[in-house]
Amino acid sequence: MDGRPIGIFDSGLGGLTAAGELARLLPRERIIYFGDTGRVPYGSRSRETILKYARQDVSFLKTFGPKAIVVACGTVSTVAIRELVSENDIPIIGVVEPAGLAAAKATRNGRVGLIGTQASVRSGAYERVIASVNPDIQVLAEACPLLVPLIEEGRIHEGDVVIETVVSEYLSPMKEAGVDTLVLGCTHYPLLKKIISRQMGDHVTLIDTGEQCAIRVSELLEQGGLLAPVDRKQGRRQYYVSDAPAGFVRTASFFLGEQIEDSVERVDIDRY
Amino acid sequence: MDGRPIGIFDSGLGGLTAAGELARLLPRERIIYFGDTGRVPYGSRSRETILKYARQDVSFLKTFGPKAIVVACGTVSTVAIRELVSENDIPIIGVVEPAGLAAAKATRNGRVGLIGTQASVRSGAYERVIASVNPDIQVLAEACPLLVPLIEEGRIHEGDVVIETVVSEYLSPMKEAGVDTLVLGCTHYPLLKKIISRQMGDHVTLIDTGEQCAIRVSELLEQGGLLAPVDRKQGRRQYYVSDAPAGFVRTASFFLGEQIEDSVERVDIDRY
Repeated sequence: MDGRPIGIFDSGLGGLTAAGELARLLPRERIIYFGDTGRVPYGSRSRETILKYARQDVSFLKTFGPKAIVVACGTVSTVAIRELVSENDIPIIGVVEPAGLAAAKATRNGRVGLIGTQASVRSGAYERVIASVNPDIQVLAEACPLLVPLIEEGRIHEGDVVIETVVSEYLSPMKEAGVDTLVLGCTHYPLLKKIISRQMGDHVTLIDTGEQCAIRVSELLEQGGLLAPVDRKQGRRQYYVSDAPAGFVRTASFFLGEQIEDSVERVDIDRY
Repeated sequence: MDGRPIGIFDSGLGGLTAAGELARLLPRERIIYFGDTGRVPYGSRSRETILKYARQDVSFLKTFGPKAIVVACGTVSTVAIRELVSENDIPIIGVVEPAGLAAAKATRNGRVGLIGTQASVRSGAYERVIASVNPDIQVLAEACPLLVPLIEEGRIHEGDVVIETVVSEYLSPMKEAGVDTLVLGCTHYPLLKKIISRQMGDHVTLIDTGEQCAIRVSELLEQGGLLAPVDRKQGRRQYYVSDAPAGFVRTASFFLGEQIEDSVERVDIDRY
C-alpha cells in the first residue's frame, strides 16, 4: 500500500484522456494533473525545447512527492523519456512503450500505422519499440499537425467536412498501405476515434495510447505493492495549469468525459 | 538621418508579412526581426502571460539599440501595447492603431468587421481606436482560432474545401451584418486575402494590418528625421527565433514573399 499520489502531465489538455483512463482503472488513487497550457503545443518545437519543458514539468510534479509520474504527452514520451527516466528515482511511464507493444501484439499482417505530432513522428520512437518485439513489422508514420487545433476547437463530430477532409488526407497513405493496426500517437486523438475508425474500417485495430498507458501504470503499481490503501474510497484529483484556469474546466470536461468538480490552480512553470 | 536598426517582433512568423511591407517601403533600413517560435501561439493565452512574453521580446530587441520597435503581432498590439509604450523611451508601434484608423476612414456605411485571434477580439482594442474617430461606427468582431494553424500548414489556396469552409463560417456573420470594411486583425491573414476577398465580395475593403503599420512607421521616421542614411544601398536584415531555426527559412519565404538570404539565429528568450 502506498498513499502517495500519481503525477501526470501533458503539454496541454490531451493528457486528460489518459488521466480519465487512469481514474477509471484506479479510482482510489490520488491524481495530480499538470497541463502546460501556457506553453502548448510541444509537438512543433525542437528537441532541446521539449526536453527543457519536460524537466520543468517533472520538477513541478515532484513537489507533491509522487510514487510515479505519467508522461501523458506523445511528444515528450517520444523525444525525452530516456532522459527523464535516467534523471529520476521514481517510475516515469510514457505513452510510447505500452502503445508500441500493444500495436506489435495486435497486428496480424505486420503493417502498423502511426499518427502523431511532427516531433513524435520525427523521433522514430514507436518504430524502435515495435522493432524490439518484431523487426519485420513495417511502421508507416504520418505527422498530423492540424488535428490538435481542430480537436481543441471542438471539431470532432462525424459529418463535419473540415475534420473529415483533414483526417481523410492524413489516413489515405495508411489505407493504401493496408495497415491493420493504427496507433493514435497523441492523447488528443481518442476524441476522433469514431471518425478514424469509420474511415479506416472495422478490420483496423486502433491503439489508444492513453488507455494502454493507464493499463501499464495499473500493472506496475499492483506488481510493486504500490496501490492506494483499500480503505480510501475515492482518490482526490487536483489539476494545475500554466496559463489562466478560466476555460480549463469547460474544455477539460470534454476530454475527461465528465465534469471536473475538483480544484484547478495556476502554476508559474518557468520557476521549476 | 539615423543609422540605428528597426526592431520588429511577432509571436511567430505572421509578423513577417509586416516586415516584408516595411522592407518594401523602406529598403535602406536595417531590420531586426524576432519571431517567438518557441512560445507561439500567443493568441490563446492569458493577458498576464502575453504581457510577460512581450516584455521579454522588447527587452531582447533593445540589445540592438533600435530607433523604433514594431509590434507586428495583433495579440500583443491589442493586449499589451499601452504598457510597452509607457515602459520604453523609443517609439513602439503596434498594428492596431494604424489599422483601426484606416478602417474608420474606409467605411462608408459605418459597419466594420474585425477578424483576429481570441485575445485580440476579447481585448476590444480595435473598437476603442475606431470609436475614437467616430463612436457611431459599429464593429462586429469574430475570433478565428483555426486560421493561424491552417495558414501555417500552407492551406491558403482557393478551392481547398477545408480553408474555404472554415473561412466561410467565420465570415458568415460579417456578411449577414453587411460590413463594407473588414480588418484582417492578425498578421497571418494577408495570406488568405484572395479567399476572403472573393467570399466577402469586391465592395468590401480589406484592411491589412501589416501594411498599415509599415506605412505608419515610415511616416513616423520621415517626420522625425530618423530615416536611414541615403548613402546606404540596402539595409541588412537579421532574423532571430526562439526555437530551432531549421524550417524557419522555408516557411519564412512563404510569408515574406521572397527567399531569405540573410542570417537566422536562435535566441534563448527566457533569459530576457
